[in-house]
Amino acid sequence: MQHYSWGTSEFDRGPLNRISDVDGVTVGHCTIDTTSHKTGVTVIMPSRNFIFTNKLTAAVHVLNGFGKTTGLVQIDELGNLESPIALTNTLNVGLVHDALVDYAIGESGKAGIRLHSFNPVVGECNDAYLNDIQERIIKRDHVFSAISSASADFAEGDVGAGKGMSCHQLKGGIGSASRRLELDGQPFTLGVLVLSNHGLLRDLRVRGLEMRDLGARGLEPDGQCLGPALADTLADVNAADRGSIIMVVATDIPLSDRQLRRVCRRTGVGLARLGSGMAHGSGEIAIGFSTANPARFDDQQDLRTIQILNEDRLDRLFRATAEATEEAVVNSLLAANRVVGHNGHVRESLTDLLGMMLPSGSQRS
Amino acid sequence: MQHYSWGTSEFDRGPLNRISDVDGVTVGHCTIDTTSHKTGVTVIMPSRNFIFTNKLTAAVHVLNGFGKTTGLVQIDELGNLESPIALTNTLNVGLVHDALVDYAIGESGKAGIRLHSFNPVVGECNDAYLNDIQERIIKRDHVFSAISSASADFAEGDVGAGKGMSCHQLKGGIGSASRRLELDGQPFTLGVLVLSNHGLLRDLRVRGLEMRDLGARGLEPDGQCLGPALADTLADVNAADRGSIIMVVATDIPLSDRQLRRVCRRTGVGLARLGSGMAHGSGEIAIGFSTANPARFDDQQDLRTIQILNEDRLDRLFRATAEATEEAVVNSLLAANRVVGHNGHVRESLTDLLGMMLPSGSQRS
Amino acid sequence: MQHYSWGTSEFDRGPLNRISDVDGVTVGHCTIDTTSHKTGVTVIMPSRNFIFTNKLTAAVHVLNGFGKTTGLVQIDELGNLESPIALTNTLNVGLVHDALVDYAIGESGKAGIRLHSFNPVVGECNDAYLNDIQERIIKRDHVFSAISSASADFAEGDVGAGKGMSCHQLKGGIGSASRRLELDGQPFTLGVLVLSNHGLLRDLRVRGLEMRDLGARGLEPDGQCLGPALADTLADVNAADRGSIIMVVATDIPLSDRQLRRVCRRTGVGLARLGSGMAHGSGEIAIGFSTANPARFDDQQDLRTIQILNEDRLDRLFRATAEATEEAVVNSLLAANRVVGHNGHVRESLTDLLGMMLPSGSQRS
Amino acid sequence: MQHYSWGTSEFDRGPLNRISDVDGVTVGHCTIDTTSHKTGVTVIMPSRNFIFTNKLTAAVHVLNGFGKTTGLVQIDELGNLESPIALTNTLNVGLVHDALVDYAIGESGKAGIRLHSFNPVVGECNDAYLNDIQERIIKRDHVFSAISSASADFAEGDVGAGKGMSCHQLKGGIGSASRRLELDGQPFTLGVLVLSNHGLLRDLRVRGLEMRDLGARGLEPDGQCLGPALADTLADVNAADRGSIIMVVATDIPLSDRQLRRVCRRTGVGLARLGSGMAHGSGEIAIGFSTANPARFDDQQDLRTIQILNEDRLDRLFRATAEATEEAVVNSLLAANRVVGHNGHVRESLTDLLGMMLPSGSQRS
Repeated sequence: MQHYSWGTSEFDRGPLNRISDVDGVTVGHCTIDTTSHKTGVTVIMPSRNFIFTNKLTAAVHVLNGFGKTTGLVQIDELGNLESPIALTNTLNVGLVHDALVDYAIGESGKAGIRLHSFNPVVGECNDAYLNDIQERIIKRDHVFSAISSASADFAEGDVGAGKGMSCHQLKGGIGSASRRLELDGQPFTLGVLVLSNHGLLRDLRVRGLEMRDLGARGLEPDGQCLGPALADTLADVNAADRGSIIMVVATDIPLSDRQLRRVCRRTGVGLARLGSGMAHGSGEIAIGFSTANPARFDDQQDLRTIQILNEDRLDRLFRATAEATEEAVVNSLLAANRVVGHNGHVRESLTDLLGMMLPSGSQRS
Repeated sequence: MQHYSWGTSEFDRGPLNRISDVDGVTVGHCTIDTTSHKTGVTVIMPSRNFIFTNKLTAAVHVLNGFGKTTGLVQIDELGNLESPIALTNTLNVGLVHDALVDYAIGESGKAGIRLHSFNPVVGECNDAYLNDIQERIIKRDHVFSAISSASADFAEGDVGAGKGMSCHQLKGGIGSASRRLELDGQPFTLGVLVLSNHGLLRDLRVRGLEMRDLGARGLEPDGQCLGPALADTLADVNAADRGSIIMVVATDIPLSDRQLRRVCRRTGVGLARLGSGMAHGSGEIAIGFSTANPARFDDQQDLRTIQILNEDRLDRLFRATAEATEEAVVNSLLAANRVVGHNGHVRESLTDLLGMMLPSGSQRS
Repeated sequence: MQHYSWGTSEFDRGPLNRISDVDGVTVGHCTIDTTSHKTGVTVIMPSRNFIFTNKLTAAVHVLNGFGKTTGLVQIDELGNLESPIALTNTLNVGLVHDALVDYAIGESGKAGIRLHSFNPVVGECNDAYLNDIQERIIKRDHVFSAISSASADFAEGDVGAGKGMSCHQLKGGIGSASRRLELDGQPFTLGVLVLSNHGLLRDLRVRGLEMRDLGARGLEPDGQCLGPALADTLADVNAADRGSIIMVVATDIPLSDRQLRRVCRRTGVGLARLGSGMAHGSGEIAIGFSTANPARFDDQQDLRTIQILNEDRLDRLFRATAEATEEAVVNSLLAANRVVGHNGHVRESLTDLLGMMLPSGSQRS
Repeated sequence: MQHYSWGTSEFDRGPLNRISDVDGVTVGHCTIDTTSHKTGVTVIMPSRNFIFTNKLTAAVHVLNGFGKTTGLVQIDELGNLESPIALTNTLNVGLVHDALVDYAIGESGKAGIRLHSFNPVVGECNDAYLNDIQERIIKRDHVFSAISSASADFAEGDVGAGKGMSCHQLKGGIGSASRRLELDGQPFTLGVLVLSNHGLLRDLRVRGLEMRDLGARGLEPDGQCLGPALADTLADVNAADRGSIIMVVATDIPLSDRQLRRVCRRTGVGLARLGSGMAHGSGEIAIGFSTANPARFDDQQDLRTIQILNEDRLDRLFRATAEATEEAVVNSLLAANRVVGHNGHVRESLTDLLGMMLPSGSQRS
């Protein structure tokens, strides 16, 4: 499929420039697209194995906690992930949580074990601007559909949980990017996937281009160039930033959970560079996992031998994480189509907008 | 209803010796009791008002985070509670979460507002020893039934979410206690409710009586005095402590969220005095709220005037919290009846056990 | 004194555009400037009163904890500040801590009380590039000198603790900025002071101007325009970011300690916008306090009446904090003179650099 | 030297029943004992090597943060320890911190490196009841004296930093205990050292013996049996618990820093069993380190191979930690002699007290 370019990077990108460049990671969507419902479910499958019986090192970092993401308490305590990571809208977290339990019971049955305890991880953003969220259109089958459709070559933009999301008051949603690093002569990959739903248009800074300069570029918010919706958006200087963002960081680099948490914290650097202000009303949460050092649930040894990164080598991962997060959000904008949702609410596409502003062709690869 | 006595206290108890001695707090149960299902739902209603539109100051403290309680991230960020607190078993957290959203949409409708965001708080313990947890018998209506049955004069022991819980390898479940304090000449109350499901019998210390001394008291684990189930329990010195406990602390004392978090931390003192070892496999979580200084969701003032406690006065609250927690757990044991659950698993009642050991009448008020 | 301009702001600045625009806040420096020693002490005095007997609400946020700042544990627990905030170099933290105890004993004596407990707050950055840090030139008297020189109209740049600091591989140090907000019709102020010592030159982004574009502007790193030192700096693409930054946020807005912590977290937004990557080797720590609601140490009431901000109004503070932090760091760069330190190490001044690039006069007010 | 017995343990004790049963760990004291000064310094040396160049995995847990312990921020961030752990009184933290920097510069010189950054760890309790703390009698040489006297066979009780400390209103101070565990067939050790300075006499519970039952045992607080000082203590039911405790946990078991933090948290279980209420006014802080997996500061590999514990095996460590902490505090009481300090303040010895109560000989091994 087609992809978008953002600019030069300090690191090589992976072949897909997606989180799925980390071996074993796949992503599936189920999208609901009716007149009044623009929503869905996206599931990140962290490994080929059933993750409950092959737990992965994991960590979280809460940039701003006005959010309902589940599963963080146990990840903090145990430093591991035992569930796929599902993303959805704010009011369907419980239902998706419940469906993940169903999924885990089913997979456990195949593995010949009875499931007594399970820690589902469900992230959410609020798509109420475009989606009639209170009707709670998402059902159990949508979660299973997202899981079964998981693949490495997944779509970005207004798909899955991203269908109804807004980013910097434009159409946002699912975006991803990846970076490659070499350690001790071996190649490794770090990937980021975001569900973007945060920010104000006037704050957006794409590589030095500030949206508040739009007027200075002759693009007056009179409706002529930008269309009525965007003109309204730009004119509404009192708009509150009530959005949020969930960021999933995956890597095959061997990291301790503490190191992963430090990595997760650097997602905030990427966000801020793009103009996020970490608004009060946002749930901004990063969840990271490493596919190295998987732990068998029935390991009989008392002591385990694992690899971790030399702490002094973290800086390159930090830079790669900030950069991949920044690009993943840009990709969520670039890949998203204009959406007209319930109550006639509209979110414009950044690609359309850039098409008005830049020489044709310059915004895509 | 009848209640049990635990010994002298440094503080006066409230009239009900329950969390509902805090004005406005009520508790409702829905109990499921079939041959293979011993489980249910318990809901703590924090105030008479719809809490989403009248948010309360709140805080949490995670003693050990091997648990799935939801809602903690937002409580940590905003320092408030906007949901009833529901308790249930480990695998039904998502369903109960989803039902609380339904409840909140309904109540919002009555209040004339549309609900776009809501932070349900659902605590859980694992009742898989007595309950066929994987069948997930709990449904949406059980949650509504628990809510509608909420009252100040609620039952303790093997009821609601406590139906299938085990505490120190005896029958545990719901327990509560309260303490009264005077501040600036005015009376205040602090109450604790626990869902007890933790601990080993050999570790239990009830006011200096250690269960490991049972043998020394002529109560040999030969089945004659203690019954086969308990003898087995005592003989099983390798039993793992895989339990957990959810503790809800309510008060009408004006406290900041930070002060409440400090209060919540002292629940661990009460637990340890009774012999809890804060085992690896446990989710031990305290959730506290104050009914003072409620915040209207549509407050138009920029600045709010509130009361808080002089920090130096916290010690008495800490002592009251530790004591009330210790007694609430003892009450969960004393109020619980013997339960025979799925697979023929049995949990004995401490009251029955004490009836064998102590002069009749001495264990109850 | 002369001051520098950074650009348009969403908010009005205070009259001094410094942290001292918050009434009662003053800042004092003691600068050590010898051939091999470029270091010093800066002290922020949070109020006119002796702060130990009139404690202020306070909070901290650790962006990255590779640092030695003292006092954070107690601020986290009690939510208050009882000490001036002293800034110095990494290896003199203990000595400055000790001197603050001396200071507090002296002030307590004047107030007629004996001091048994005191929580000194000492922040640090590492000036080892310009300063022979291991000789530990700072002594007790330097701390007292900084305290006694505290005033509202303090110097910025290469002064006090900032004498030897480097920021984005240029000369950094002390910088400050302030913003005004209206709440319930009343004027309030928020100010930030930084000790800047972080970042790489190639990452610096001043309002869209990226230093990595210097070459494109005809400023080749051949030494002709930039001077040998800066050419070396730009050429050293493998330079590690081993710096750090301490940020002090002061306000007269009534905030709870939790609200203050949320405010402190937004300093990271300002840093990232300027190009900070939150490097592994950095201690990046924000300390915030509010001069509203001071608490008398001998308050005899059990309950206190205080004001706090309506939580929904925090967004404007967040934006003001990010902006003031960004400008404070820019000001630390703009106000700093070129310094030649021990071993002949040099840090160039951004003002000198901009003087080469921009029309004369445009960089200063 | 002579040692004291506490009762049966679930685990074997190490040969010294001290933290120094962990290979490489030694402890040194410098005691100041004049009419008005009862104070000192105790230093825990974590390994035979210079720890700055051979850093150890470490973690902290703050039970209650009304304390001034330094170094915790960096331990939290990096998960390692690079300094000896020094203990002293509240007002000498800065001076001891400064002396540790001197020490580290000296040792670095021997290792041929210049020291630019160092994270001293200094814990403190407040000995102001027995010691004229404001005179700050401790000097740099006392710290070096404590370091040079470090040995495996160190004294407990009223020595070093423990000279002036009070525990449960009796004479407390330094206490230690150790436990042995087998993992994968290999022997390991976990040791605890405490500086005890917390608690009320009426709360003390030594294995089921509650001090509040003293009266019932015929030991009326009339001065006849207990001595005037203790009678006063028992009579003072309004005494505030303003103490604190620093607990150092050492082990040779390979643990991640997260696992160590979980271990550290269980020190609170031991404290509460003895009757600690985690009072408002206390600094109760646990610092843990593992001598396994030392990290060379100049390691050139990107990836490190280490061992960690299978997470499911932590329960036995938790139990050993709680037990060793409880016994270490009891040992700090049993080993301490009666001390008459400044202002004629007296702390009685528990051994003396038990000598009055129990058959002679039963309290010592």
